[in-house]
Amino acid sequence: MKQKNSIGVVETKYYTFAAKEGLRLSSGRSLGPVTLAYETYGQLNPDRSNAILITHALSGDAHAAGYHTGDDTPGWWEEMIGPGKAFDTNRYFVICSNVIGGCKGSTGPASVDPATGKPYALDFPVITVADMVEAQKHLIDHLCIDELLSVAGGSMGGMQALQWAAFYPERVLSVIPIATALKHSPQQIAFDEVIRQSIMADPAWREGDYYDDGQPERGLAVARMIGHITFMSDQSMEEKFSRKLKNGGYSFRFAADFEVENYLHYRGDNFVKRFDANSYLYITKAMDYFDLSGGRLFPEGKPAKTRFLVISFKSDWLYPSHQSQDIVRLLKRRHADASYCELPSTYGHDAFLVETEGQTALIGPFLEKTAALNKKAEIYEI
Amino acid sequence: MKQKNSIGVVETKYYTFAAKEGLRLSSGRSLGPVTLAYETYGQLNPDRSNAILITHALSGDAHAAGYHTGDDTPGWWEEMIGPGKAFDTNRYFVICSNVIGGCKGSTGPASVDPATGKPYALDFPVITVADMVEAQKHLIDHLCIDELLSVAGGSMGGMQALQWAAFYPERVLSVIPIATALKHSPQQIAFDEVIRQSIMADPAWREGDYYDDGQPERGLAVARMIGHITFMSDQSMEEKFSRKLKNGGYSFRFAADFEVENYLHYRGDNFVKRFDANSYLYITKAMDYFDLSGGRLFPEGKPAKTRFLVISFKSDWLYPSHQSQDIVRLLKRRHADASYCELPSTYGHDAFLVETEGQTALIGPFLEKTAALNKKAEIYEI
Repeated sequence: MKQKNSIGVVETKYYTFAAKEGLRLSSGRSLGPVTLAYETYGQLNPDRSNAILITHALSGDAHAAGYHTGDDTPGWWEEMIGPGKAFDTNRYFVICSNVIGGCKGSTGPASVDPATGKPYALDFPVITVADMVEAQKHLIDHLCIDELLSVAGGSMGGMQALQWAAFYPERVLSVIPIATALKHSPQQIAFDEVIRQSIMADPAWREGDYYDDGQPERGLAVARMIGHITFMSDQSMEEKFSRKLKNGGYSFRFAADFEVENYLHYRGDNFVKRFDANSYLYITKAMDYFDLSGGRLFPEGKPAKTRFLVISFKSDWLYPSHQSQDIVRLLKRRHADASYCELPSTYGHDAFLVETEGQTALIGPFLEKTAALNKKAEIYEI
Repeated sequence: MKQKNSIGVVETKYYTFAAKEGLRLSSGRSLGPVTLAYETYGQLNPDRSNAILITHALSGDAHAAGYHTGDDTPGWWEEMIGPGKAFDTNRYFVICSNVIGGCKGSTGPASVDPATGKPYALDFPVITVADMVEAQKHLIDHLCIDELLSVAGGSMGGMQALQWAAFYPERVLSVIPIATALKHSPQQIAFDEVIRQSIMADPAWREGDYYDDGQPERGLAVARMIGHITFMSDQSMEEKFSRKLKNGGYSFRFAADFEVENYLHYRGDNFVKRFDANSYLYITKAMDYFDLSGGRLFPEGKPAKTRFLVISFKSDWLYPSHQSQDIVRLLKRRHADASYCELPSTYGHDAFLVETEGQTALIGPFLEKTAALNKKAEIYEI
């Protein structure tokens, strides 16, 4: 059943570039050719001034809104992108692409290495958030968009948004980093490391060389279970599961007793069907390397024109509000135009995906004002 | 180098009971014979009124204080137990025993099943915190102690202390539950479940039947790494590691880059040398089953004489202060004599092991007053 006000049926497109020279990466290595899977929603206006780039989180993809033919599940930010929504497709041209290193159509460790004719596996180079943004820039150039009205995303999406501002302040009118951080803290690195260790401890991982034999399913499922604990809050788990038993208790041989255990198993088992274990390794490492603190963001002072709307959620303990406040503090020190709001929510880190009303109330007017401030832009109902 | 004011050289003793009839467990099954490893510090006074039982946490053991011959590492609560310390061995007779289900001398899944002559492995029965306390009661009876001056412990040790009050209020003059809860929350259960899944996902676990072939080392190491994240606070990790690199970054094939990763590896690798994987499964389950909420603690109203000192730590997010406050609220509703203090600390859950000064300031006077209130007791410097 399709949702009301959905953008409707959408299709994933693919853009391939850097076939010859390769994309130069932060590590010094090159990657090419590079393919980005991407989707667009709404219409680019004649002066190409209404484009918004949506950047996705760890396990996200290019399918942010609408429905693929034959699929009943909408894109991952369906509530935020569409006609009359926060990212209003009647007014804006919205783009979302799968990150490099990913496994949803963009070039990643599961892609075929042209040098060998086999999947890259661990021969895939180390990827950073900066590399993801460099690849996106090729796509934005390809779409002939000089200036983005906004770059917006939650979690790792927020890191990409900040990286856009750091690399290309002259090309982004606004940035909306949500539930994110200037740098991964040691606790965030620690969680990512046990996630990686869970995958790599599975003998089926075979040093990453498992594409002929199937995924390291158990390791990847455990990894995702760890992730899901960090996505929820203590309170939302209490509300959803409390201590409700699935069976009578005293389970046989450590089978699940409690509903919360079954929930984690369900999430873990589903994830292995849709995500590549090596991509999880590469992308978590990219997040761990992310660090725009200190002098790395606008060392020259105020960005020319980029406006910022920073959003965090009260119960998010994976990317706690104090990390968003660090972003705002740094921006204010650079005399940047930055607003901040901590939204009330009990959903923990997942709030950026589900608390759409509060985010819409902030993002809608922020985008309108950004467009109005931009003398060149003529934003209108298409 | 031995510490000043240490109790000095100590020895682990063993008490075996229930050889014939077996210890009746919460699950309905019986276990026997049961051996408890235990240590004692200080002297039992003539009227046997100065005994304090210390109860240990998940991976603790009977060796709470002093030094084993030839060993330079003191017991796990050395700073708290000894001459002139919080649990002053000049005044009190302190007992600590390894829980059943454990692997440090008490009967657990690695022990030999008399029925088969082989380790129990998963034929070991499900164990609860109540069962641990029942076994301890046999030891206290064996030592001819009618009444304990106190039962004190942190984390799972606090659960045992509360369980003593629930089962035997007439036999405990005071209870000191530290950094603990009335019941495991779904988040706590969730962490325990991913810890168990990490172990069980390791093929070397062999459905628990690994005693001839060696531990599921990788799985157990990952499990312990997860645990260590939850034992520390965001802030203590920041202070200890920040984003310091171990190597230059961009590590080869997902080796550790950051010091926090190396710390977790070190902790995980060390743990597999000293702890049995099946014990970790059994004991985490015991904690998950723990629930003294609702009418389970003193349903008849005020306990005859038991006094309570409840302690939590500000930065402990694994057993957050609101859980200690739930204990206090329940005790107050029962008109029990209960004091509560949240101690400032940045150490997270580990604080109960390391923040000894703050705990000593509370526990020392509390024990003195408990002894003074007890008309029968004659506490004096031995």
